[in-house]
Amino acid sequence: MKVVALAGGVGGARLADGLAQALPAGDLAVIVNTGDDFEHLGLHISPDLDTVCYTLAGLANSITGWGRASETWQALETLSTLGGPSWFRLGDRDLGLHLERTRRLRRGDTLSVITQGFCRQWGVSSLILPMSDDPVPTWVSTTEGELPFQEYFVHRQCHPQVTGFRFEGVQQARPAPGVLDALHAATMIVICPSNPWVSIDPILAVPGILPAIQSAAAPIIAVSPIIAGQAVKGPAAKMYAELGIEPSARSVALHYGNLLSGIVIDIQDRNLAPGLATGRLEVYITDSIMKSPGDRLRLAREVIDLGVRILG
Amino acid sequence: MKVVALAGGVGGARLADGLAQALPAGDLAVIVNTGDDFEHLGLHISPDLDTVCYTLAGLANSITGWGRASETWQALETLSTLGGPSWFRLGDRDLGLHLERTRRLRRGDTLSVITQGFCRQWGVSSLILPMSDDPVPTWVSTTEGELPFQEYFVHRQCHPQVTGFRFEGVQQARPAPGVLDALHAATMIVICPSNPWVSIDPILAVPGILPAIQSAAAPIIAVSPIIAGQAVKGPAAKMYAELGIEPSARSVALHYGNLLSGIVIDIQDRNLAPGLATGRLEVYITDSIMKSPGDRLRLAREVIDLGVRILG
Repeated sequence: MKVVALAGGVGGARLADGLAQALPAGDLAVIVNTGDDFEHLGLHISPDLDTVCYTLAGLANSITGWGRASETWQALETLSTLGGPSWFRLGDRDLGLHLERTRRLRRGDTLSVITQGFCRQWGVSSLILPMSDDPVPTWVSTTEGELPFQEYFVHRQCHPQVTGFRFEGVQQARPAPGVLDALHAATMIVICPSNPWVSIDPILAVPGILPAIQSAAAPIIAVSPIIAGQAVKGPAAKMYAELGIEPSARSVALHYGNLLSGIVIDIQDRNLAPGLATGRLEVYITDSIMKSPGDRLRLAREVIDLGVRILG
Repeated sequence: MKVVALAGGVGGARLADGLAQALPAGDLAVIVNTGDDFEHLGLHISPDLDTVCYTLAGLANSITGWGRASETWQALETLSTLGGPSWFRLGDRDLGLHLERTRRLRRGDTLSVITQGFCRQWGVSSLILPMSDDPVPTWVSTTEGELPFQEYFVHRQCHPQVTGFRFEGVQQARPAPGVLDALHAATMIVICPSNPWVSIDPILAVPGILPAIQSAAAPIIAVSPIIAGQAVKGPAAKMYAELGIEPSARSVALHYGNLLSGIVIDIQDRNLAPGLATGRLEVYITDSIMKSPGDRLRLAREVIDLGVRILG
């Protein structure tokens, strides 16, 4: 069983962690969105990649979902006292990673090689792959103009009304080494409960990735990030509404369309199941909110079981 | 009374702090060596400037003399765990300053403007001036080849045998704004007990500074950093010996030569006084080791009194 998960930040990281726990070591590859990567204070920051890595390494802050557990904030506090920009919350331990990653990028190492080096150091046995080693910054079109993703997401706290998205440079981007191999070898592909617009779509937009998913001899299962019309975390539901689409698990299923062979929806959305289930789409209903590490493992097992059932 | 002090790191910072305490607010300007500035982990680091600023702001680590009090080390520990270079000890609070300074330098602010902004924030009433806003990196010639200063000083812990020094780019460097004005207005110039070779000589090598000192209508008083043949801190004595010069307060006096109108030597070196005192050079003997904040103030007052006496 070779599982490939596509993931953005917190929700994606949690399901990826469940999958890593459920599968034998080495049987999981996670392809992570890097569209929200940006340079800040001269440092290369990869928020989704770090959230996935910290989570799988057991280092994540379990309350916020992002950043590290037992974090301290001395550097940011000092910078702030001196008048520097503190809107992007960088903890001291987190900074240590950003400094080292940026140092290695400057000497010519790739993001994927650096990430795998860090994961080896942390004893993470899953393969964590940035979607691309090339920069593909997400821009959010809003009624206030186009904003870099972190400016929209963190600095403006998702307040501006969204009208669309642009993945800059994506046509020139290449999948990171290992991404296409992992998809070709996959016996199951899981689209984690991440934001379809700004976490999963950037991955699918990298030339080569969508065709590799479509041609993989593997069921493709999405877990809806929308539950009872709301996103568990982040602006996905707000984005759907602002784009004139009803925020629902049904809209998530339509978003991915023919790509899916299965979708996992929350028990609160069980009334949507009859309208979704077709000969082509298996619908699985469960409690899909991951509060505890145990929830992650249970949901991951249910996703894997659904895939096995679809495989027949 | 307008006092200008020339200073390097710990010893210079301590006497500058004493002078700041002894003088009315605003009557002290400190011209600080930036020859040991370097880029590390993508950050612009100014070790001597930071030591002087931290000390005058009351933020310095009183045990080490460099770095900040109540410092934490989470970022460096993380970076080190990930395989990054940890030989240069950067604390978390210190990092916050380096990040903010580097950010401002990248947007085009000068080192002197940034430094004065930080000092305003900290309530430092003395004027702290980098010797130059232009880079003048010190290279140390050794029997093992030429080394960048911090490579010699911190990474190699001053082990290589010194044969000479080079201040790269110094011919093109301009004194930072305010430096020449401060020297022209000075009623007394103090050469702090800093390393003559790598703390004071780089300052004197910036075109315009030495002539301004020579033409100032002010006594010029050095405090010897060599006491009983040893440096209180750092490699000054080792450098003298390796260059074939006896490490002594006498050699310090000869180093500065005609520039000096007064020299302060330690009581342990009182036997040197008769050989030093000439019609041109006043010698003052005192306990010149600054262990406590009170020592700094007492020594500063003695230096000022000597200057007043020379002024007549």
